[in-house]
This record gives sequence, C-alpha cells and structure tokens, in this order.
Amino acid sequence: MGNGTRMFASDNASGAHPDVVAAIAQANVGHAHAYGDDEWTRRAVASIKRHFGEHAEPFFVFNGTGANVTGLSAVMRTYDAVICAETAHINTDECGAPERFTGGKLIATPTPDGKLTPALVEGALAGKGVEHHSQPRVVSVTQATECGTTYRPKELAAIASVAHDNGLVLHVDGARISNAAAFLGCTLAEMITGAGVDVLSLGGTKNGLMFGEAVVFLDPALAGGFKFVRKNGAQLASKMRFVSAQFEALFGGDLWLRNASHANEMARRLASAMGGIEGIEITQPVESNEVFARVPFELIEPLQAVSGFYVWNERTGEVRWVTSWDTTNEDIDRFAEAAHALAGR
Amino acid sequence: MGNGTRMFASDNASGAHPDVVAAIAQANVGHAHAYGDDEWTRRAVASIKRHFGEHAEPFFVFNGTGANVTGLSAVMRTYDAVICAETAHINTDECGAPERFTGGKLIATPTPDGKLTPALVEGALAGKGVEHHSQPRVVSVTQATECGTTYRPKELAAIASVAHDNGLVLHVDGARISNAAAFLGCTLAEMITGAGVDVLSLGGTKNGLMFGEAVVFLDPALAGGFKFVRKNGAQLASKMRFVSAQFEALFGGDLWLRNASHANEMARRLASAMGGIEGIEITQPVESNEVFARVPFELIEPLQAVSGFYVWNERTGEVRWVTSWDTTNEDIDRFAEAAHALAGR
Amino acid sequence: MGNGTRMFASDNASGAHPDVVAAIAQANVGHAHAYGDDEWTRRAVASIKRHFGEHAEPFFVFNGTGANVTGLSAVMRTYDAVICAETAHINTDECGAPERFTGGKLIATPTPDGKLTPALVEGALAGKGVEHHSQPRVVSVTQATECGTTYRPKELAAIASVAHDNGLVLHVDGARISNAAAFLGCTLAEMITGAGVDVLSLGGTKNGLMFGEAVVFLDPALAGGFKFVRKNGAQLASKMRFVSAQFEALFGGDLWLRNASHANEMARRLASAMGGIEGIEITQPVESNEVFARVPFELIEPLQAVSGFYVWNERTGEVRWVTSWDTTNEDIDRFAEAAHALAGR
Amino acid sequence: MGNGTRMFASDNASGAHPDVVAAIAQANVGHAHAYGDDEWTRRAVASIKRHFGEHAEPFFVFNGTGANVTGLSAVMRTYDAVICAETAHINTDECGAPERFTGGKLIATPTPDGKLTPALVEGALAGKGVEHHSQPRVVSVTQATECGTTYRPKELAAIASVAHDNGLVLHVDGARISNAAAFLGCTLAEMITGAGVDVLSLGGTKNGLMFGEAVVFLDPALAGGFKFVRKNGAQLASKMRFVSAQFEALFGGDLWLRNASHANEMARRLASAMGGIEGIEITQPVESNEVFARVPFELIEPLQAVSGFYVWNERTGEVRWVTSWDTTNEDIDRFAEAAHALAGR
Repeated sequence: MGNGTRMFASDNASGAHPDVVAAIAQANVGHAHAYGDDEWTRRAVASIKRHFGEHAEPFFVFNGTGANVTGLSAVMRTYDAVICAETAHINTDECGAPERFTGGKLIATPTPDGKLTPALVEGALAGKGVEHHSQPRVVSVTQATECGTTYRPKELAAIASVAHDNGLVLHVDGARISNAAAFLGCTLAEMITGAGVDVLSLGGTKNGLMFGEAVVFLDPALAGGFKFVRKNGAQLASKMRFVSAQFEALFGGDLWLRNASHANEMARRLASAMGGIEGIEITQPVESNEVFARVPFELIEPLQAVSGFYVWNERTGEVRWVTSWDTTNEDIDRFAEAAHALAGR
Repeated sequence: MGNGTRMFASDNASGAHPDVVAAIAQANVGHAHAYGDDEWTRRAVASIKRHFGEHAEPFFVFNGTGANVTGLSAVMRTYDAVICAETAHINTDECGAPERFTGGKLIATPTPDGKLTPALVEGALAGKGVEHHSQPRVVSVTQATECGTTYRPKELAAIASVAHDNGLVLHVDGARISNAAAFLGCTLAEMITGAGVDVLSLGGTKNGLMFGEAVVFLDPALAGGFKFVRKNGAQLASKMRFVSAQFEALFGGDLWLRNASHANEMARRLASAMGGIEGIEITQPVESNEVFARVPFELIEPLQAVSGFYVWNERTGEVRWVTSWDTTNEDIDRFAEAAHALAGR
Repeated sequence: MGNGTRMFASDNASGAHPDVVAAIAQANVGHAHAYGDDEWTRRAVASIKRHFGEHAEPFFVFNGTGANVTGLSAVMRTYDAVICAETAHINTDECGAPERFTGGKLIATPTPDGKLTPALVEGALAGKGVEHHSQPRVVSVTQATECGTTYRPKELAAIASVAHDNGLVLHVDGARISNAAAFLGCTLAEMITGAGVDVLSLGGTKNGLMFGEAVVFLDPALAGGFKFVRKNGAQLASKMRFVSAQFEALFGGDLWLRNASHANEMARRLASAMGGIEGIEITQPVESNEVFARVPFELIEPLQAVSGFYVWNERTGEVRWVTSWDTTNEDIDRFAEAAHALAGR
Repeated sequence: MGNGTRMFASDNASGAHPDVVAAIAQANVGHAHAYGDDEWTRRAVASIKRHFGEHAEPFFVFNGTGANVTGLSAVMRTYDAVICAETAHINTDECGAPERFTGGKLIATPTPDGKLTPALVEGALAGKGVEHHSQPRVVSVTQATECGTTYRPKELAAIASVAHDNGLVLHVDGARISNAAAFLGCTLAEMITGAGVDVLSLGGTKNGLMFGEAVVFLDPALAGGFKFVRKNGAQLASKMRFVSAQFEALFGGDLWLRNASHANEMARRLASAMGGIEGIEITQPVESNEVFARVPFELIEPLQAVSGFYVWNERTGEVRWVTSWDTTNEDIDRFAEAAHALAGR
C-alpha cells in the first residue's frame, strides 16, 4: 500500500487530474495580484456562478474542513446549534473544528443511511427560543452522504422548507456533490439553488483537484462579511490563482461531471462484482462513489492487502470502498477476483 | 498592473519556481495515503530536520496565517498573551486570526525598525502572575521583520534568554526566514535552533512555492498535541504530498537559498538605484528583500503605474518595494530610470 | 404560581436559608480586600479543605454553569472532548456554554437513568489518538444525576479508574452533591476524594445559598492556572467575601447536610404519597431531592395549578418534582391530596 | 489592612449599603421562578427603564467583566475590533476576557487622561473594509474613566456620532457611571440615551451593591439574542431576584445618586487635603471618586500603612486613591494628617 498503487481507501488518496496540473502550470506566468484579485479567480468565480446562478457568491478556501467551518461561522453565533446526521463529517471527522470555530453545538441525529429528513429536523428543534438551550440555527446535510447515499432534489427542498419555516439556514457539505449530481442526473443548480440551499461547501479535492474547496452562498445576504470570516479563519490563499485555476479546470467545462460519473460507474461495478460473493453483503444503496459492505471478518485483512480500504464499523465488519476519477476496470476486477478466491477457500 | 507583469507589490505576487511546479507534477503519480502518511512528506520532513536538527518536529500547513495561529495555539491558553512588535504581521495583517484562534491577547509594542529587544520584552512582562492581567506566554518576532530588517543570531539568542528566564516561549514568524539567512550568511540551524527558538513558522510561499508553510517545533516537548491542533484548526491538507513535494523542492537542496539570495540582491540593487534619486530617501536598512523609502507624494502614483507597489504610510509617503525570486535586473533598471525621469521634471 | 408560594419547579425557586442571609449581613462590615484576599474566603476555603482533604484546591465562582465551564476549561484544549450522559446539564441546559468556553465537543451518551458506566465510557473512547477525531479528555458525571439517581462511591471509583487508565480526567457536576451524600450516608471525601475524582463543581445555590458555587480541584496539579481561567472566564467576584461567607455558612458546620437531608426526605415522602395514586408511576429511583413520574396527561395542568413543576418529556407525560431545603410536609400533603382528588374524578 | 478598616484601595473593598442588605433579606420570601421570571426582576427592569427610557432593554449579570464581555459579544463577530483607550479596564484588568469571549481584537489607543476623542477614534479606523485587518465595530469608553475623569454628554455625543457615521456601535463601561452623573449633574438619560450610546455596562457593585451589574441596550435592535449570549456566557443567575432586588434598592429611588455624590465629595476633600502637601501633586482632574497623585517614593509605603491603596505607576510614583459610599471625613483627615506628618519629617 503506497507506491502509487491505486486503492479504495479514499478519494483523497488519488492524485490530481492531468488537466488540473496543466492548469496550474499555465497559471504560473509572471506576477498576479495576491488574495484573489486576479484573472484566474475572476474566471473561476464566473464559472461557478454559471452553475449556481448569478446571485451565487463563491469564495475559495483550502480544504473541506475549512469550507465547512467558515461557512458555518458565517451564519452562527456561539449560542447556536447545527442539526446534522450523527455520521456527518463535521461531527465525526473534523476533530471538533466546527465547535472550535463556531463556538456552537452540533445536534447529532442518528439515521439509518446518513440522511436527515424533515421529521428528524423537526424533532431536533425543541428548545428553540428558550435561553437554556443552544439555538438550532443551521441544518447541515452532506451530499452525497458519508454513507454513499444521495438526497433527491425534492428531499433537499423539503428539508430547506422546514429549515426556513423555523428560521434556520440549510448548509450542504458538498465534498462529493459532483458525484451526487452525476448519480441523480440533475444540474448543480437544480440540486442546490433550486432546492433552497443557503450555503454550500463545494468540493473539489475528492474529484480531481490537488487541494481547494469553495464556499458558495446561494443567499447572497449571508455572504456579507465572509471575506473577513475567511481571512480570520486562516483560509485565505495568498497566491490564490493556483486554487482558482484548478477550479476553472474542473467547473469551467464538464470535467467535474466526467470525473464524478466515472467514479460512480466504478463504484457500481465494484458493488456488482462484490455483492455477488458469498458472505459479502452490500449495506447501503450505491448512489455515488462509495460502497459499503459487510465482509466476513477473516476476509478483511487479506482483502486490504490486495487494495487498501477502511473498516467502517469494527464491531459488525462493515467496510467502506471508495472509487475515484482514476479507478480502472482492472482495479475492480483484480479486487473482485481476489475476493472470490479468498471467499472460496 | 496584472497580466503577468512583474511588480514590487509583494513576494506573494510572484508565481512558483519552475522546480516547484515540476515537483508537484512528479508527485502526481497514482495513489498515496492522505494526510501526510506518504513518501513525499517523509522526505520533506527529513530535509527540514537536516536543516534544524534531529529534534525538530515539522508539520505542514496551508498558509502563513495558518502556521502562526496553530503554532501559537499549541503553546497558549485563552488567558495568555503574546508580546510582539506593533508592526508584526500577526498584529496588523491577519484580521485578528491570532486572537480568534488562541483566545488570547497581543501585547503590541512600538519599535523603530520592527525589532523587539530584550528590554522591550522585559517592559511588557508587567502583570505576570497577577490574575487580572493576560499572562505573557510567548514572545513572537518576525525574521526578516515586516520592516525588512533582520535579527542577528545573537540578538535572537538574547531575546530567547529573556523569554525562557520568564517562562515564555520564543516564536518566530519566518515568512521570510530564508531571506534573513541569506543576508546574514548563516545556516537556519545557527539562526533558529542555536539561538533557542521554540516554535517557527517556516515560510515557503514568499520564496517560490505555490502555497504551503510549515510549523517547526524546535522544542519537541511542545509538539505533543500539534497534530490535533492542526486538524482542529482546519490546516491539515488531505492530499498532503502536494505540499510536501514543494517543500522538498525548496529545502531538499539549496533552492531556498538561491531564491532568497537573488531576491535580496535585487533589493539591494533597487535601494542603490533609487536611493541616489533626488527626494527619495531609503528609510530602513535593506537586510532582506524589502526596501522602504520615503518618496515625494507627487511621484508615488506615476511610479506605481510603472510597477505596482504599496504605500506603507499614507501620512509620510513611505512606500514598500518587495523583490522576489523572479525579479530581474531589467525590472529594477526600468523602474529606476522612470524614477529618474519623473524626479528630474 | 409566584407570590412566594412554594412549588416543585426547581430547587432554584427556593430562597436562601436564614443562616446564609445572616452570614452575608455579618460579612458586611467595613472594608475587605477584593477578589478573595479576605478572612471570609480564607475560612471558607479551609472548611472545604476539611471536607475534601488538605490537597483540595477550592475556588469560588458565580453559578453552576460558571463552575462547570471553568472547571472543564482548566483541563481541556479546543481539540478535546467530554464524555457525558445525554441528559447531563452541561449537554442540555447550559445553552452551549461548555462548547463555547472550551471550544471542544461533548460526546453525549444515552443512558436509562442519567448514569454513565465504565462500559459506556469505554465505548466513547474510539478515536483516541487519531487526529481526525476530537480527543476524549474528560469524563463528566453529575452527582446526583439530572434523573435524581446517584452514583455509589464505588461506581464513581470504577469510572475514575477507566478515565485515568485512558489518560482522562474525571469531572463531577455536583450541583446536588450534598443531596447525593445525604442519600448515600457517606462523607464528601469518601464520595469524591476517595473515589478518585479530579475536578468538582461544588453546588451551593440549589442547597440554600443565594448564589455561588465552587470549583474544587482534588488533583492540585490541575489547579495551577485556574485563577487565570476564572478571571478570563468572567467568574471572579470582586466583593468575594459575600460568596465565601455563604459557603462558610453552608459547609463550616452541617447546614449542607441538614438542608440536603431534609429535601431528600421530602422527595421520598412525595414519591411515596404520589406513587400510590392510580395512574401515576414513579419512573426513577428516588435517590436525592428529585422525583420523576409518569402522570396521566389530563392531570398535569390541574396539578401544576396546585404547585408548579416542569414536564420532563412532553411525549410520555413524564414530569419532574423537585423538593428543597424549605419544602414542608404540608406542601407534600396538599399536593398529594389534590392529586388524589383529581385522579378519583 | 483588612479587619474591616476602610481604605482607599478600591471601591470594591467597601461592603454593601445597608439598604441593599435589607432588600436582599426582603426578597428572601418563599419561592420565586428562577432566571428572572419574578416580581423583583420586573420591578428593577422597570426602574432602569425609567432612568434610560422605555426602549432601554436591561439584563442583569454577575459582575463588571461579565457585563462588558457579554455586551461586546452581542454586537461583535470574531473578525471585529474594539477601539478603546489603552487604560481601559477591558484592556488592562480583565485578563483577556474580552478577546476570549468575542474572539476579536482590542485597538488600544494611548490617551493622556483615559478619554477617547473623535479624532482618536477616526485615527483607529484604518483598515475598515479591508479583509486583512480586524474590522473596527465598537468604540468602548469608560465613564467615569479609569483615570477618574469624565466625558461630558456632548463629548459622548460627538464620539457616538463618529462611531455611527462609520457603522460602529458605542459601548460604555459604566462601572462608575453613577459617579460620573453625580459629578456632571445630569441624568443618566442625558448622559447615555441622549448622547447616542448603544450598549451600557451599568455598574452597581462599586456603588454599594454586593454583586451584580446590568447590560443595558439603548438600541433595542441589538438586544435580540442577548438572553442567549448571557446564558451562553455563564452570566445568568438562577435565583435572580437576589440581583434584581439589589438593583431596585439602588436605582428604584435615589440611592445610586446619594452613594455616588458622597464618594465624589470624599474624593474632592481628599484631593484638596493631599494636594496641599509638599511634594504631592494631583495628576488628573478629580471628576469622580478617584484621585491620582504623584507621591514621593519614600512616602508611599508609610502612607499605605495608614490606609491601603495601589501604586498606579511604579516608575513615576503615581498612586491611586479611591473613595467609596462609606468613606468618612475622619478617614480623609486621618490620612491627610499622617501625610503631613510624614512629609514634614
């Protein structure tokens, strides 16, 4: 594991798409004003606005946690709370950065599939208006979820509706938003702008960038002080053209969709190949580039030796396989063949 | 201004050195474990240890503010204070990120040249031990300073001594540390490790990287929880090899020194050319890649039209010219000739 | 409700014990040094040390939330987490103050009776040492719990043992610690010091004070910077003698135990009287001064009109009745008679 | 020093006015709803509104630092800054609590007499709108200042005007506001509401209360979320009637003015008696209950033995004498006689 061998550990393990590397090299010409006052940034902002609508206000930051915590900070006070799924990345994998940056509380809600529902949101609103309790201010959903499932646009709209009816803001952690759109066959605008989302962490790194994410405000009224939030949160790149150029490579054309569609297809192929193996059970609908499966305990380590991946649940033997823009049919076939052989012993 | 034209606005305006771009491209092979568990990171860490000593503990982060605020957070409690020069970047140009991340106070001390002294540090220690006052815990100096001046190693050692005698930690904001070392003709170890520095923000971006800085703990006892501080501070890159590979390009050989020496030489040439012009007065010793000068008010805008730069002090007409790894003799000569012509009218 | 009528809403609704008012009046003589450098504070500190042992380090603060958040702040970094019961006051009733003050995360664990167990603590330790996750640093239990139950000293000792084995600190929210000690028939030292507790919020207000709580460090090594934590947390009283004198009235003799024993006795009488009524079911063991009961929905409002109290669970009709140092037999009897009459309709 | 002997150390050293103790005792009748839903609080709120106008929104908190930090938190984001005098209590004597609670920066401005001016405020506005700099959001002045001086209502109005013109809020730390009003012979409304102040820390403790301050929003639009800020900041008293009853004793009638006028008169008498002594020089106008004087170094300790006080400036020998509501003519005369005798040696 390592040495460049492709694995199913994470889409963070893959490198950058060649077009992204080329874009960086092309942006490396002479001087440009720092901090985003440059042509590459203007172009990338325009491209993102084309996807989400003219009112969208995009800001580039360094990474996914940075996008989430600055986006949340922009709309929260220290006495506020975020309603999210218990499995949400902000709750499980950001080392408490959301609490640290916002000062607020996460109301982590158990779900079977990583998806909040209007009813779950309503169930978490108790205490609204009462000074003894953290005040629900944000609903945060992940699209696609950490369980590999996706919200249909109308599901997001229903959650947005409950949120707005109660004075809350809808935040989407879109680390894998391109995979969701590719699976759902809808535009980013249909999924996000049309559904009534207020703030989006627009993912790039897991879909072929080297680094860089964007915070996109669909409600421009919320973007007012964000340039200060970003700098105050240590998420403002000085040589920003090298972030913007990557985003332009991804969203200026259809690379975002091609990369995501490919990764999704690989996930389906993987689920199909593995799902047929004795003792292996696919545990979540495969709606993006992640496959969850229960695997006999004795197979886990031998399989990890073939291609690296993480155990999701030590107790049940559920594992996670993540495909990427660069996963190949051969990667899948080799893995599935090994699994067959191991299972058949 | 823009269009790739080189200017004197900031070393952040320059692009990346070609070797850095090449290193990024070379790192883009297949998969690698995320978050720094990769060969590029191991190599870059080893190179930095070669510079600063085996006990040094380096951690890569995204940017200079990120390096400063995580480094300070690692050693401070919310009731602590940082003694720094009034002109320190942490005090003037980080939008309050140091206060936000640490919760603590900056004790900003006026200086003529951006340099703290043992006496200035001692003068800021009042209140140590008394619960009504923020507790001085860190002395933070910038090397080279925001005024283009540098601390001699023995000056740093004297400050370290006062700091340690009073239970404080010495932090160095080394955004331009390579320029300082190039000017002083000493090794990084002589300047930092030997002088008794405890925590260093090791600059890369201003010296030819695309992005990326490092926090280096010279006192490894302080590094204990830093991996959590970094993640909790949203400064952990997932595809870290793309930061590490740049650092290896810079510090694996002598590129750091060549880039910095060149920029310094350009600054001296600029100061020499401009200092001879009627009405222009160089206001600070030129000890790195920054030149400060008082310029007749009527010359400022015409000169900015020749090559962009910032006014440092609106009231006095003091301006700042920054050279970079890619500044050329022609850039200087063209600028100086224009100044001569303008002054001679 | 109001007008001085005693109710079962909260022990915060009761006033101060006459001895406490007298102590305040007696402390109001001439001048005393501010911020705790006074005779009343020295005496109260000595009394608390007599209860908890010479190594105990007590600090007075304003209120229960203040005690909890400063005590937790003293031992946590922003990347740390607190393991607590889902019902813990710090999780449900402090408007997010623990997250705000510490920057850290609460790992809120469901329990049937408000009590953590060693197994529940161990189950919440996953992620210890891994940078992506908040780091469990504190186990916080409430004694007596928010469900009216109490930990036996050996239960606390078992939790302390798990905590210490994993490098965690045991914090006790002792808002009703006197009620717990009175119920268990043990000394405060047996329950807290002997069990291995590290930090205690020592309650006073719910047991007959006007205001004021104390943070007591049983491990004096943790108390080092606490005077700064307290001031930095806005919890340092200037005229501290008026807090200390109250504490001396409570803990200098046995008033703490008399008040708590009386309140507990009233709770048992209430549970006994109400438990026999058709349709009313006592839902938690009565081990302090709180009684939890499921009450037919149609009886709740009429009963609240007799004596105020809160509904604990809107869905199940579970209510909470709290007795106090000043609750009388007549209060109970009048309430129980009304309940009988209402139930018999 | 101690033993009840009156001194000039601080108005925090004095006890509570007998009427305040009586009010507390009278409030100690039976049960009352917790957290301010009680008759005493309603009455005290009404009295404060009578002073400041119907639109004023008062909230009781525990202490002066608590009032300042919650008031500032209500109007600031973490990227904001407070413009204040270098001598401001929030800058010098709150152990960094303002930075900790708000996350923001203090822009501490040198002044000769503790008073900001419109010009000083304007001079601190640089960087407004630029993302690299903390954003000036609040002007905070202390009335009476920490130097014993006072702002005339029209001086406050001029500062309010500059603040509002630039989108800032005017905050007044009114720990000694009653002394200022007594000196200026104006109403609280003239000084505060009429001058355009937005948020006030209304002092009580230094003017005869046991504990307790209030945050008063003159602009009710700013008070919206304050009940959450207060609880989230651990400044909400459960048995609030014991704070409110004190405030009602002070502000329900004219006790606030009588106490303050007396203390001011004592300060004038002290300044007059001491100012005539050889070698002693009064250094600030005596406009409240504080007297600043330069005293020969050899007299300081002997004088402190007569009546305790603090040295304000170790270098110059400037000392601070504070009078209180209970200072007597005899206290002054005894002190002055001792000074005469010491100076005459």
